[in-house]
Amino acid sequence: MGKQNVHDKMDQPENSHIKRVIAVISGKGGVGKSSIATLLASELRRRRYQVGLLDADITGPSIPKLMGVSGRPPTVGAQVVPAQSASGVRVISINLLLDNEEDPIIWRGPLLAGAVKQFWAEVLWGDTDYLVVDLPPGTGDVPLTVLQSLPLDGAVIVTMPQDLSVLVVKKAVTMVKMLNVPILGLVENLAWAECPECGHRMEPFGPSKVHEAAEAMGIDVLGSFPISPQLTALGDAGKIEYFRSDALSKMVDLITEKLPV
Amino acid sequence: MGKQNVHDKMDQPENSHIKRVIAVISGKGGVGKSSIATLLASELRRRRYQVGLLDADITGPSIPKLMGVSGRPPTVGAQVVPAQSASGVRVISINLLLDNEEDPIIWRGPLLAGAVKQFWAEVLWGDTDYLVVDLPPGTGDVPLTVLQSLPLDGAVIVTMPQDLSVLVVKKAVTMVKMLNVPILGLVENLAWAECPECGHRMEPFGPSKVHEAAEAMGIDVLGSFPISPQLTALGDAGKIEYFRSDALSKMVDLITEKLPV
Repeated sequence: MGKQNVHDKMDQPENSHIKRVIAVISGKGGVGKSSIATLLASELRRRRYQVGLLDADITGPSIPKLMGVSGRPPTVGAQVVPAQSASGVRVISINLLLDNEEDPIIWRGPLLAGAVKQFWAEVLWGDTDYLVVDLPPGTGDVPLTVLQSLPLDGAVIVTMPQDLSVLVVKKAVTMVKMLNVPILGLVENLAWAECPECGHRMEPFGPSKVHEAAEAMGIDVLGSFPISPQLTALGDAGKIEYFRSDALSKMVDLITEKLPV
Repeated sequence: MGKQNVHDKMDQPENSHIKRVIAVISGKGGVGKSSIATLLASELRRRRYQVGLLDADITGPSIPKLMGVSGRPPTVGAQVVPAQSASGVRVISINLLLDNEEDPIIWRGPLLAGAVKQFWAEVLWGDTDYLVVDLPPGTGDVPLTVLQSLPLDGAVIVTMPQDLSVLVVKKAVTMVKMLNVPILGLVENLAWAECPECGHRMEPFGPSKVHEAAEAMGIDVLGSFPISPQLTALGDAGKIEYFRSDALSKMVDLITEKLPV
């Protein structure tokens, strides 16, 4: 591309060495971006990597709930120690730092952006093979700051089978390309659901559009994920990391091939 | 509550008289907030009210696509004339003002907030019975600005049947209450889907939680809406305003009872 990013990337956090940083992005909310981020982190962990999960969705943080972590993280010197999920994924989220997790975060843009930078620089990530960053949806302040300031190795784009989502995801892809972050590929979530009564595979949000959308944008397909009541139940129980599927395994194969450690 | 909002509300736009302003809010993206906003506006229009629809979801605007409007709106003096949907809903959205609707809006918070204020003050809304405002998800800059600066008569809160969404919606409810905007009630979207093969009513995101959530937050239930392939198809075709259902009619009954014009 020949483009240069004029913004300074942040250095490695103190006492830490993070080998690969992967952002999970969607143009539109509610496509299951946070689920895909937690599944990616959990599958990487299952493969014995050291994995961190940075919840940059400051205004709608969902990672702690999905991963079953809670309680205020301790500090070591000036750094916060991430919470650990049952399988050992290191998690940091604004929800862990609030006294009441139902409190809204009514922060103005610059404060939001500052919080994400702190989640990078002032957290004791230690030796981490993969840091997965869950971005807020859209192309606003916080995704922009994350894309500009974190040394990202790649971005996973999440969408769902609606024209609308595809339209909006193109905006996110354009933003990521403008900021010179490599796009690892497109994930289609909520692509179908299996009727528990008759086994019929229905497409409640319409037919899959991932291959045509990826081709139009010149990016790879990383996989298609169904609406899964089992996944919803595991997420609601804080045990999403126990979810396994062939599609998930395949997605992580493709990502680790592109970004080996 | 005895609370006073210290922020100045904006005056009526020039040459316009807007009787009722309703915000549609969700704590989390992807619960179908924009669908509910367009359905509310369309059903009000079907009842012969003069209706405006302000797309305040600047970073993920979806209203023009759903309502089938496009093209740059003309100006009269210093004011922009809203686009009109087939049934006559007046629509304004950043997507109508972009040269290429796939361009991302990489705007910093204050610019975003300024755009929403312009969509109120510099648009020729004319005589409008109900102005429906589609907010971006979350509790960040833009929802905050809209709640603070527009003279809102009430807020509709949209959620879906996931613990996570219910958790995050509580943040939005807390924010709305803090800013002293009356809450009209809670809508549960994506509550169930009907198998097209056997008619089984499945709950892909888990069992409904709207009544217990509404009770816990001390607010009313405005209705439960299914995942509807028909609604998705109409939305993708820009014809969402033709969707009708008993649940929609009931929701609008409840809202117009609370906010008569």
